[in-house]
This record gives sequence, C-alpha cells and structure tokens, in this order.
Amino acid sequence: MGIKAAVAGASGYAGGELLRILAGHPEFEIGALTAGSNAGARLDSLQPHLWPLGERVLAETTPQTLAGHDVVFLALPHGQSGPLAEQLGEDVLVIDCGADFRLQSAADWEHFYGTPHAGTWPYGLPELPGQRERLRGARRIAVPGCYPTVSTLALWPAFAADLVEPDVVVVAASGTSGAGKSPKPHLLGSEVMGSMSAYGVGGVHRHTPEIVQNLSAVAGRPVTVSFTPTLAPMSRGILATCTAKVKPGVDAGAVRRAYADAYADEPFVRLLPEGQWPATAMTLGANTALIQVAVDERAGRLVAVGAIDNLVKGTAGGAVQSANLALGLPEQLGLTTIGVSP
Amino acid sequence: MGIKAAVAGASGYAGGELLRILAGHPEFEIGALTAGSNAGARLDSLQPHLWPLGERVLAETTPQTLAGHDVVFLALPHGQSGPLAEQLGEDVLVIDCGADFRLQSAADWEHFYGTPHAGTWPYGLPELPGQRERLRGARRIAVPGCYPTVSTLALWPAFAADLVEPDVVVVAASGTSGAGKSPKPHLLGSEVMGSMSAYGVGGVHRHTPEIVQNLSAVAGRPVTVSFTPTLAPMSRGILATCTAKVKPGVDAGAVRRAYADAYADEPFVRLLPEGQWPATAMTLGANTALIQVAVDERAGRLVAVGAIDNLVKGTAGGAVQSANLALGLPEQLGLTTIGVSP
Amino acid sequence: MGIKAAVAGASGYAGGELLRILAGHPEFEIGALTAGSNAGARLDSLQPHLWPLGERVLAETTPQTLAGHDVVFLALPHGQSGPLAEQLGEDVLVIDCGADFRLQSAADWEHFYGTPHAGTWPYGLPELPGQRERLRGARRIAVPGCYPTVSTLALWPAFAADLVEPDVVVVAASGTSGAGKSPKPHLLGSEVMGSMSAYGVGGVHRHTPEIVQNLSAVAGRPVTVSFTPTLAPMSRGILATCTAKVKPGVDAGAVRRAYADAYADEPFVRLLPEGQWPATAMTLGANTALIQVAVDERAGRLVAVGAIDNLVKGTAGGAVQSANLALGLPEQLGLTTIGVSP
Amino acid sequence: MGIKAAVAGASGYAGGELLRILAGHPEFEIGALTAGSNAGARLDSLQPHLWPLGERVLAETTPQTLAGHDVVFLALPHGQSGPLAEQLGEDVLVIDCGADFRLQSAADWEHFYGTPHAGTWPYGLPELPGQRERLRGARRIAVPGCYPTVSTLALWPAFAADLVEPDVVVVAASGTSGAGKSPKPHLLGSEVMGSMSAYGVGGVHRHTPEIVQNLSAVAGRPVTVSFTPTLAPMSRGILATCTAKVKPGVDAGAVRRAYADAYADEPFVRLLPEGQWPATAMTLGANTALIQVAVDERAGRLVAVGAIDNLVKGTAGGAVQSANLALGLPEQLGLTTIGVSP
Repeated sequence: MGIKAAVAGASGYAGGELLRILAGHPEFEIGALTAGSNAGARLDSLQPHLWPLGERVLAETTPQTLAGHDVVFLALPHGQSGPLAEQLGEDVLVIDCGADFRLQSAADWEHFYGTPHAGTWPYGLPELPGQRERLRGARRIAVPGCYPTVSTLALWPAFAADLVEPDVVVVAASGTSGAGKSPKPHLLGSEVMGSMSAYGVGGVHRHTPEIVQNLSAVAGRPVTVSFTPTLAPMSRGILATCTAKVKPGVDAGAVRRAYADAYADEPFVRLLPEGQWPATAMTLGANTALIQVAVDERAGRLVAVGAIDNLVKGTAGGAVQSANLALGLPEQLGLTTIGVSP
Repeated sequence: MGIKAAVAGASGYAGGELLRILAGHPEFEIGALTAGSNAGARLDSLQPHLWPLGERVLAETTPQTLAGHDVVFLALPHGQSGPLAEQLGEDVLVIDCGADFRLQSAADWEHFYGTPHAGTWPYGLPELPGQRERLRGARRIAVPGCYPTVSTLALWPAFAADLVEPDVVVVAASGTSGAGKSPKPHLLGSEVMGSMSAYGVGGVHRHTPEIVQNLSAVAGRPVTVSFTPTLAPMSRGILATCTAKVKPGVDAGAVRRAYADAYADEPFVRLLPEGQWPATAMTLGANTALIQVAVDERAGRLVAVGAIDNLVKGTAGGAVQSANLALGLPEQLGLTTIGVSP
Repeated sequence: MGIKAAVAGASGYAGGELLRILAGHPEFEIGALTAGSNAGARLDSLQPHLWPLGERVLAETTPQTLAGHDVVFLALPHGQSGPLAEQLGEDVLVIDCGADFRLQSAADWEHFYGTPHAGTWPYGLPELPGQRERLRGARRIAVPGCYPTVSTLALWPAFAADLVEPDVVVVAASGTSGAGKSPKPHLLGSEVMGSMSAYGVGGVHRHTPEIVQNLSAVAGRPVTVSFTPTLAPMSRGILATCTAKVKPGVDAGAVRRAYADAYADEPFVRLLPEGQWPATAMTLGANTALIQVAVDERAGRLVAVGAIDNLVKGTAGGAVQSANLALGLPEQLGLTTIGVSP
Repeated sequence: MGIKAAVAGASGYAGGELLRILAGHPEFEIGALTAGSNAGARLDSLQPHLWPLGERVLAETTPQTLAGHDVVFLALPHGQSGPLAEQLGEDVLVIDCGADFRLQSAADWEHFYGTPHAGTWPYGLPELPGQRERLRGARRIAVPGCYPTVSTLALWPAFAADLVEPDVVVVAASGTSGAGKSPKPHLLGSEVMGSMSAYGVGGVHRHTPEIVQNLSAVAGRPVTVSFTPTLAPMSRGILATCTAKVKPGVDAGAVRRAYADAYADEPFVRLLPEGQWPATAMTLGANTALIQVAVDERAGRLVAVGAIDNLVKGTAGGAVQSANLALGLPEQLGLTTIGVSP
C-alpha cells in the first residue's frame, strides 16, 4: 500500500507536473485530484498528456476532498493555501507550491502581495546550509519559487564563503509555463515565439524578497537584490545570470573551490566542468540545477549562471524532493536527473 | 547483477536518448559506450545532459569493445550495422536503430540506399498484428524508422479491417533531431526557427519503402504510399497526417471501432477521445503514440493523425520496448507514457 | 494628397498587418482605424510594434466612422462584413479580408458557416487565370483565405494544364497568427512551442470549400479536396503540401513546364529552382508565394509545395495587391518580395 | 542613376540583410556582390529569400571586384576589413560591419582579438551625443556591434545626465543569427530550440570593451561593465537588461526626463510609454530600438531594457542609416520602423 497523495490544483501546469512525477514515483499512490472552476471535468480533457490517469475526475478543492491522504500537494493561486491548510490535519504532510508560506517577513509579504501574511513554513530548498535537516520529518513545507530556487543555488555558495559584496544583480529568462495556463494575450504563442521581453522590471516582481531572504540568511547580513525577469520563447526552463562584486583578494580558484565544496554531494545540483555553461534544455523534465561560475577580473565581479526546469526543480520536482525528505524516503526517489534533451 | 548493455554511437542523438532511458531502467547496467570520431572523449563533453554518466569515456566502435555484453544497441549511420553485427555473438541481443535490416526487399534497399542489402531482421514494432510474438526471444531486432513508426501506427488498423483503398498519402512534420547532430547550414537554429520547410519530396525519402512494406503486409496486397516529410521548428516530435480513400459503405463508426479494437490493450498507443487531436508535445520524452482518426465524407477519405517523440517511440524507446520483449522482461519496464508537457 | 484608406478591425493581427503595409505604401494615407470592443484605446496599447502610428485612437466600427474614405479594408470576424458593406458607398473600394464574400455557393456557405450567405465578390487572387482583369476597377473584393491562397497557387497550374486527377489531398501547417489574437488555452505559447498539432480534421475546416471552388473553376469540373490543417510552432507562415494523381503519360518535364509557364511573369510567385524546396521563413513579411513541384513516379502523384506568410500574401498583402489593381496603381506598389530571413 | 553599392560578404547573414535593405532603398543600385569560399555561386543557392536578386553571381572579395562603386559595405569576418579597406579609394564610402575599426584602444583590441589593431573609424551610432555630425560626409564608418548598439542606447542617457554610478551590469539575450551562418553543433536548431544558454561569461566577450568605450565617453570617466551574453531560442533580436546604481537623490522622474529628452527627436529610438516593456519581436526587420527604464528604489538601481533586431539596427540597418548620413541623404531613407509582428 502506497503513501496516499492528493493534488489540489490538478488542472494547472504545476499540478500537472506533480502528477507526471507522482505517476512515476514508486511509493506514492495518487488519491484525490482537485480543481477550482474545472472541478467535475475529466483529467484528460484538461491535461491530455496525462492520459494514463485520464479518466480521473477532478473534485472541488475543499478540506473534505483532500481529507484522508498522507500527503497533500497544493498547487493553488497565491492566497488560497493558507485557509485550506488550517483545515488539514497536523499529521498530514502539506507541501505548498504557492507563495503563501515562503516569506518570513510579514512586512515583505504585505508589500509585495497586498494581503495579510499567512505565516512561514519550513523552506523546501534542501541544498541550503542546514536546511535538509529541517525538512526531515516536517509536516508543512513551502516550496520555493522558481526564480528564487535557481538564483539562490547560483549564489549562496559565494555568500557562504564570504566571497562577494552584498549587492546582487539577477537577470533571469523564464519559459512561459512559469506564467501559468490562464490565457492572456501577451502569452499567446504568436506573441512569445521569436521574442524575448522584459516584465516586472524595477524590483517589483514578487520573487524578489524571497531571493533577498535566502541570500541574507546565508550571508548573515542584509543583501540587496536587483532582480529582472524576462520571458523567453520556450515552454520551460529558467536561465539565471547572477552577479556580485568580489571581495578584495578573491580569485577564480577560491570561487571554484567554494562552489565545488558546496555541491560535491548534492544529488540534484551539478557544477559543470570548467568551460561548460548551462543550457536550460539540459534540465528538461529533470530535477536538476546546472551551475557554472566565473570571475570577471576587469569588472571585479563574480558571475554565476544557473539553469533549471521551472516546473521540476523550480516547482513540482522540488516539492517531491522535499516530500521524500519529510517522509523519510530516499531523497532522490521518483526523480530523474537527466533532462530530455535535445 | 543487471543485464549488461552497450551503446554503439553514444555521441549522437539516438545514442544519447538510449542512454537516458537505460539510465532509468531497473534491469539494465550500462556497459561500453562507443563512438566513431568522438572515441576518446568524455561523455559529458558531448552529451552534457547525461551528466550522471559524464565521466564515462567513449571507446571506439569495434566488435572488441562491444563484446561481453548481453545487449548491444546500435545507433550508427546507415550501412555500419551490418558488418559489425556479424562479429557479435549469436546469443547476444543486437538491437539496430539504423535502417540496415529493416527492409525485406533487397531491390528496395538498393534503390533507396545504393549499397548491397545486409539482410532482414525481425521488425521491432510490437503493435503490428502478430509481431509481438515474433520479438519474444529474438536475438536480432531492427528498430523501425521514426516516420514509419507513426505512419504505420496511424494506418494499419484501417488496412487490417479492410476499410480503405491501397493508395495512401502521408505528410509528416518532424522535429530537427530526426536529422541528427551533424552540423549542416539548413539545420542551424537561425534557419529552422520560425520556419516550416519541405524536403525529400516526390517519393525519394528512404522511409518510404518501409511504410509501403508495413502497410502492404497488413493489407495483404501492394499499397502505394506518397510520403512527404517536412521539417518543423521544434527539436523533437513527429506529427503524421495520413489519408486514404474509404471503401464504399465504410462510415465513421466502423472506423472508430477498428481503431479502438486495435489499440484497446496496447500500453503505448493511445486512441484519443473523440474530438481531441494529437499534439507532439504531449509525447515528449515518452514512449507514447497518440492516434486519432476521422472520416471526411465529402472527400470520401479516412484521415488519421499520429504523434510520437521521434527519439523515443520513434527510436530509442521503441528499441528498449523491443529489448524488453526479447529478454522476457515486462514490455513497459523503464519506459514512461506521460510526456513532459507543456 | 494620398488615397485615403480606413482599416476596420485595426486591433487584430490582420488589421495590424494592413497598417504595417499601408504605413510603407507611397500612395495611401491612413484614415480611420476602428475596432469593436477595443474602440477608444490608443493603437500602441494594442499594437505596440505600430508605434509610429501609436497615438492614433481606435474608433468604433460603424458605417459613419468608415465614411469619407477612398478605400475601406475590413478585417473583421466572419459575418460582420456583409451588413457593414451595404452601408458603404458603391464607389468606395471595399476590400474584405473576411470570408463573407468568398464563396459562390450559398449552400457551401451555409453548410460551413451556418448563417445566410451574404453574396459573392470578385475574388482577390490575381494569379488565377483571367482573374487579374476582373480585379481592375472593381469596387468590392473578397480577399482569399490564407490556406486557399497557398493551396490554390500550388495546384492550379496542374489543373490548367490537365495534368492531374480531380482528387486532391492538402496538408498544411500554419503559424499561430492564423488563429487570431483572442486568447485561448490551446494557443498559449506554452502549448504551441515545441509542438505540432492537428485540428479541423476530416473536411470540416471552413477553408475547404474555397479550395474546392478555386480548383474546380480552373479544372472545369468538380474537384474533391481532402484538407487537413495543422498548427506549427511559429508565429507566421503556411507550408502547404498538395498532391494529386498524375494523369497517364504525364512526366516531370511536362509538370515543370506547366508551372514555369504559369508563373513566368508573376511578380509575387516564385517557382523555385529545381532541387530547392520552400521554407516559410523565406517569405516572412513579404507578399511572396514560393512554389516547388515534383512527380513521384512510384506513387503516380504530383506533389506541389507552397509557402507564404499567412498575414501577407495570405491576408493583408494580398489585400493591398488587389487594392492596387482595383485602383489602377502598379500591382507591386508598397509590397515587398524579399522575406525577413533568417 | 543610383548610388552604386557593393556588398562584400554577401553570403552571410549580415550581407544578406544588407541586400534585403538595399533592394528596397530608393537611391542605391546594387553592384558587386562578393564572397570568400562561396565565390562563383549564384546568390539564390545561398540566400534563397533574396530571389529577386537570385541570378546574381558572387564574385571573389578583392579590391578589384569592389572597385568602381560609390559605397562598399563590408560584412566580413573580423580582421579582413583592414587590409581590404586600404586598397579602396579614399573617396569611396566604406562601411565596415565588422569589428576592425570600432575600438579606439589598441590595447583593448589586442587583448580581445589577439591581432594588431587596424585603426579607428568614425563610429556609426548617430544617436550618441555629437555623433551624427561626425558621420555626415564621412568616408569611413565602423558599424557598432549588435550588443553595444542596444546596450549603449539603453544606458547613455543615464550617464549623459549623470544619474548613475560608473559600474554597469548588462545581461543580454540574443537570437542565434548573431552567431553567424557557419554551422556548429551548439547552433543546431535541435540544440537551441527550447533552450536558453549562457556563453562568453566573465567579461571575455569581444563586445565588452566597445560598451565600456561608449559609456565612458559619455560619462567622461571610466565606466566598468560586466557583460554577459546569452543565447535565446529565436533567430533574431537582442534584449539587453542594463543596470547601474543610481546616484543619491535620483528618482524615477529625473530618469524618465533624461531618457525622454535624449530620444525626443530620434527617428529610430522609441522610449516606450510607461508600463510597456520592450519585446524583440516588435522590432523584427525594422531599424528600431525600443527602450524602457525604471528605478528600483529598494535596490537603489536604474534598470534599462532595450530591444533591437540584431541584423537591422544592430548591423545592416545601422550601416545604411550611417551611409545615408555620410552621403547626405535623408537619414531614414530605405529603412522601416515598424517590425514584422507578431
């Protein structure tokens, strides 16, 4: 008998990806699938690629339909997880793929989301120093945002080793699935194909305070982050280019050692061989983060580049990785590391 | 102890995809990886997405480097499999992803390939009537071409049920990975992005006689095939639109019943619910073929559409499916059915 | 003082493309721009690429706002052109980019559109035999559909020269702009990138009777057309693969001569040199149709392939070409023939 | 009788784009087309989209074949323009699209290119303060690099108005045509579609010193630039995200005024309305640069984003704009401002 898992928000991209991964996970049994306005529909009418589960019918997202499961994955619009989670048992593992419980600062939450803060849950990025231990046995986990996942993985080793100044620039290009499945004119294929565009410029993107929080925690002091997201003509993937000034005396060797040490034993993070740079397609469908780093001596800057699949390591794969830890399963169970490439 | 598998041609797209699948297969142990001009290179210098196998070094493709394995997968340029296979033991399972052993007619081979015919091996399309049984226990298997795989799956049920005339038109759009990894100007991203183009028009594509062979065998009489391949701006996937005149009295109900019967128990072929049409992205990375069929009463034609991932069901996944059968393993072992979508 | 032109439907893709072309046309002066639900908006809020016209405000589409122009281009949803055109002066040139006045058969119109037939206007495809003369001085012109434009150009020379049987198969791949700007889930970038899909299969696409009409007129007898449209991962372009059985005794030379004769003097149709096949990107932004043809002797079929930019030769460019003819201007005025490639 | 123009390097992407623009330019007559290894070929065998010029045969690139023209456009690999230009008459206008004459610092040239410095020509970016005047009547012009064009346009107004600190970060995403037409494995469509990747990270890209040069000249003191290029899955376009710390007391209003003033009268640079952000597709085929700017108060940074078509404003269009100036023609002649969008 497997571990019974429910997915709330099964009609969206994050929910669909959770189902793809859970369907291949040897320990999970897929229980209730729920949705909002799509409740009542067959799954294959909304997610035809999930045809082996296609006859399953979506229930409404309520505490009742989600009851009776060992794990509940929430893939809901921001703001919906809080009220719902309160009504799920304390012994149930609840994994929230939304933003509601990621931020520690209520002020930041209110500034960026404009609603009261629901609280803070253990943060599901096991690669952060000490974080893996905090996730073992946890019953509430906040899955990091996609941009913060890759930006943090690209930069925290530099802060942990005290190599850079606390003023960071991140420019990231995301595939369109990060913007969700709700149809909007600027997300039409006709608009995005063959085009790169900027959005959320000037520090207004909601993932900004999350990156600040992660890097400041590792640095042990406030880190300033200038974050600019851009939309790339691809369905999946994030490439994040991250830079900060190096401290005096820091050279390329010290930087490489810091990153090599940080990721020597990580199953899902790959520091690429020198001379190789990340490409998002290498991570497609896999729970992998590819990282590379260089020092620009003329500009006095460290430049780190990270690539992930935003729906896997950036959402659903990260969620399952944390669930494995929380449940005492092998961390890698049901997750792949080799991308579907080319 | 696993079943020891070698991959010859590990630096190309088909070889890389074989390795991706084999790395997740519970029964195979990956042995020798070999290549031609890339022999001596580390795998991750050529296939960076295969980083968990990245330190493996490519050996030269020779009978000696391929000896001592239970299974040898050949992913070589056409014409190289024949001489090599002769020097591999008769009790070794040899799965050829190339064209050398697909055709029964030496005349067809010579017409389309211009070299002497190497022979004919059991054809690795288990979904064809009676074919699954022929593959169990086989020690030599010819993996079908990508276009023939999807075209045959889209049309054979119509011939098996004697619903259509033996004069077929197939127009198929393929992603560029089908053209391989050897750099050519017309395959540059700059040329293919944002563009559909035709090539091999007029019956000259080498997959034509293979489609003829498959459909003629099911029909029990010669079938004429007009096959036009086109190149689509995507890395993977084939969408094949296939049409033939329906015989007098054949209606949509009869057609649907024939397809439903043909695929009722097939683990990797999905006849879509009525009203839904295949999209290649639904099959990305999965060993799935999606099929739909309609009757155009005004034109008096059956129109069947099939979608596959050319590198999975069209090559490496089909190869592993056949290997599973040959080795007496469960046919689905190590293969996924849910595409990485969107 | 220029020829004053209004564009109704200026917020959509066809309307935007008309404006792009008209803005570079030496004889036209752009007058009223109108829209439906977008009336009142600044043009650059909807069509930011049209920034040199960006401050123009969209009026409501009414006979009044369109009055006082020499030419009115209609780029409206099907069914809206009829009532509107009646209220525009008979001496005004009205160019309808919609379907309302394309079909001669009221029965076909009603079968495919389900509403009463508005009538038939001169058909804006000057390359058809005798058609150019009919357009000179005309005051009402129906712009052909995008699929019929390229399919007809690819096939009519074969019928004019009596080379093929009257049973045609057309499989065409279109960029997503052909589906318009109204946001729908299956048109999201996330869904269409990396994917080919079929739709409107089985003779139900509304462009089918228009292709039948064109080819039957040239053939002088009824032609049957099996038409399958597919959606390609690109914003613009149509590649149409068209085939029919050749009549006994017809060889490649006769076919080539027929096409060479048909297009020897056409400014916008290019029969490619032998061995070269069309790619849609070669036509991007240009009013060009690229055509190539081959004979498949084994299958006994002529295969013709055509490529256009669906928004230019397939819509707005064709509209301006016909307007030039109707107004006695040089046919090529304001139209380019070299695509923006790569 | 037109102004006679030769294009050296007519088989590449920059050369092809020059020909597309020149073919539509009312004052230029296209003379010699030359190439290196492709000399002797018909143009349409290499550039099929240029079919109206298709029968032209490429001559070898020599001083002799380029003699007798009023203007010579050089679109050659770096290092070839210098020796050639010396042998072209001093009264001939020579426009070099390569890098040879862009840099003022011989040390920078030698550091980044590893060869002796050929010299410095007037820099063809008329939008820089005072630069337009220097180009009028010039007989030698160095066309800026594509990345420096957009990065400089995005940032110079901030330096001209003394709003930012002289430490700049630029992260730019380019379409693949910027990498040229020479086939390399990492530029295959299969590799680039669906993927963002980084390259030339760490200050090693050759366009870096050119951006430094431009911004330092405007700032009147040394500016440090951290430049990271990335490769985006599109054929054309560059989106550059540029950021620098704002000086104390600088607010969004001051920034907007500076940019509005800088670009009020520029025909090819569009400061977008507030709230709108650039997308590269809006510039496709047009000589337009779209610019937007914001101030991130939390991070204390100005963030400017620019978009261009790398082959037009970034190369061939910029070249023709400068040629127009040098020859005393209207600056906008033969150049479009509306992109082929969507």
